[in-house]
Amino acid sequence: MTQFDASEGGQPVRPGGVVGILGGGQLGRMLAVAAAKLGLKTHIYAPDADCPASEVATKFTRGSDDYHRGLSAFAEECDVVTLEFENVPVASADLVSRSTPMRPSRLALETAQDRVVEKDFLCGIGVQTAAYAAVDGISDIAKALQELGGGAILKTRRMGYDGRGQARLSASSAQEAEEKARAAYAQIGRAPAILEALVPFRREISVIVARGVGGEIVCYDPSENLHEAGILRRSMVVSGAIDATVAAKAHEIARSIVSALAYVGVMGVELFELENGELLVNEVAPRVHNTGHWTIEACPVSQFEQHIRAVCGWPLGGAQRHSDVAMTNLIGQEAAEWASIAADPELSLHLYGKAEIRDGRKMGHVTRLLLPVAT
Amino acid sequence: MTQFDASEGGQPVRPGGVVGILGGGQLGRMLAVAAAKLGLKTHIYAPDADCPASEVATKFTRGSDDYHRGLSAFAEECDVVTLEFENVPVASADLVSRSTPMRPSRLALETAQDRVVEKDFLCGIGVQTAAYAAVDGISDIAKALQELGGGAILKTRRMGYDGRGQARLSASSAQEAEEKARAAYAQIGRAPAILEALVPFRREISVIVARGVGGEIVCYDPSENLHEAGILRRSMVVSGAIDATVAAKAHEIARSIVSALAYVGVMGVELFELENGELLVNEVAPRVHNTGHWTIEACPVSQFEQHIRAVCGWPLGGAQRHSDVAMTNLIGQEAAEWASIAADPELSLHLYGKAEIRDGRKMGHVTRLLLPVAT
Repeated sequence: MTQFDASEGGQPVRPGGVVGILGGGQLGRMLAVAAAKLGLKTHIYAPDADCPASEVATKFTRGSDDYHRGLSAFAEECDVVTLEFENVPVASADLVSRSTPMRPSRLALETAQDRVVEKDFLCGIGVQTAAYAAVDGISDIAKALQELGGGAILKTRRMGYDGRGQARLSASSAQEAEEKARAAYAQIGRAPAILEALVPFRREISVIVARGVGGEIVCYDPSENLHEAGILRRSMVVSGAIDATVAAKAHEIARSIVSALAYVGVMGVELFELENGELLVNEVAPRVHNTGHWTIEACPVSQFEQHIRAVCGWPLGGAQRHSDVAMTNLIGQEAAEWASIAADPELSLHLYGKAEIRDGRKMGHVTRLLLPVAT
Repeated sequence: MTQFDASEGGQPVRPGGVVGILGGGQLGRMLAVAAAKLGLKTHIYAPDADCPASEVATKFTRGSDDYHRGLSAFAEECDVVTLEFENVPVASADLVSRSTPMRPSRLALETAQDRVVEKDFLCGIGVQTAAYAAVDGISDIAKALQELGGGAILKTRRMGYDGRGQARLSASSAQEAEEKARAAYAQIGRAPAILEALVPFRREISVIVARGVGGEIVCYDPSENLHEAGILRRSMVVSGAIDATVAAKAHEIARSIVSALAYVGVMGVELFELENGELLVNEVAPRVHNTGHWTIEACPVSQFEQHIRAVCGWPLGGAQRHSDVAMTNLIGQEAAEWASIAADPELSLHLYGKAEIRDGRKMGHVTRLLLPVAT
């Protein structure tokens, strides 16, 4: 195979082509279904043969523990390779790129995998975030806590998700700061970390944005998101709920991020809306995003199809939602209620094919279309 | 495995269960995707490993030419078996039923596989059809043609689809009838046939109806259908286009048919609407139907998911459409235009993963949502 450069557009992947996906969870499953809608085949690379995505993919390759054995052979069978989780090792992306376009690219992964790198990048392009400091060790944390003032949240720089690897702390004296820092540092496993000032936000919103190989960008309407215990509970997109100028600003931020990264694919951008309407970016996810699941029912082209279109070099599709909509995650035992959910004629039920119900595990989601958007 | 009786409800197939599908075309593909949405696995039984459905199914079994070898083993691996084409041999359905519920059942297949049996059944339950006669041989056809008067259409009793195995004929004299009968009989391959009076209809409409294991029934709004050269070109569902009393009558007919057959699953009922609003049933298809593809985008639960719900013993889902909608088939070379179709932000493109474009072959379809339905 010839050497590809993912930064160049090249020819689109034609119907019948193969989209490789690193990772086999529910996001990979919904990506595979979206690819199939466009007549594309999918090939999943993941450690577990019984993963949600393998059930709907055309082909599955079991990834080895070090994530590299077999990866080259996998990549050579694909026309493009993408991912469903942002913590794919950069070395893996490089290995894929030797034979096949990897989208999104190494730059996006490097940026999103480390909270400090990400925040530095955001500030570098003029996007606002909460005040933060890179910290490593107890005295570092204690010092930063006093400098930030008020409450703060300590997060591992790498590999956190669904609120894991995080600890809240505040202190009113140097001694208390030292004590709280010690406890928090232990709680996150004594890993290199970032301390972020707690922001008194009005609400959390997010924008799902897509950028194509030619640089075209489409944004979905921002959603309001409610988290519980660090896990997304609900996303809602309701006409008038978010001020039009705030929504426009959120779109502008999302556009500037994907432009600066020359990003290809769908990205989730989480923001805090402050009481005064100001927006701070919380984090970005270089992949399809839980807060965009509502697009399956409410838009001509879902975030999953949009991502497949982008990485395959297709034209981006319609992101204009036709209805107000609410999406609720089914977490842990909630999925056991599938029969009563299925009986509600206004609900659309999605289950991810996970055999085992565990506390805090995302088992599925439910979408309810509300009123049509006025035209 | 214990012996199941498909006529009894029994326990629903739970998430994680396996839905077997006889046939591997685009209908099987869209059924498999719908099953995956509900957390169910799919197992396709079809003659061609490269078929559209195998690309998205959890498992594939290559069916042998006589359609029986391996079928028992396949059925034993499934929690329920259904089909995507109505010409599954009745003996195959019987074989499946020995170990696993087969839905729809033998009765529906027997009825729908033979046009004469189907019309006799419809007339038997008081549903109107065009005048018809079972015919076998040239003199039979000539005699029936004169009795029906005007134009008629000769169709093979079995195995016709997309206008194949059909010939139109009319005659103004006994001698002409004999000549026309000879030509038409040759054209349809000298098979046992039915002669149907040509009906001066205003338009063709269809109803997608679903019946669950407990006897509950839901109907989708009737669509207006346009055929070209015997192949469906377009289905439209637009508020006010079909008179409410006509729509209600169409639903009543669909309900009476699935009730009389104790049918489980989705059925497509094609009707002729006459100038006076009267409805004649043209034919029924005991499966998901091309004229119901619009339900994917326009309803909470698509015909594909509805069928999976029904055969799995789940509650039926919401069939109320939220938008007016138009669905257009992509036939033969039209699918080569995928890139320009994908570029239209108001269109939803579906391609079926068929490698080879052939004249008259259904390669995909395109759905356009029109105005929201007034609430």
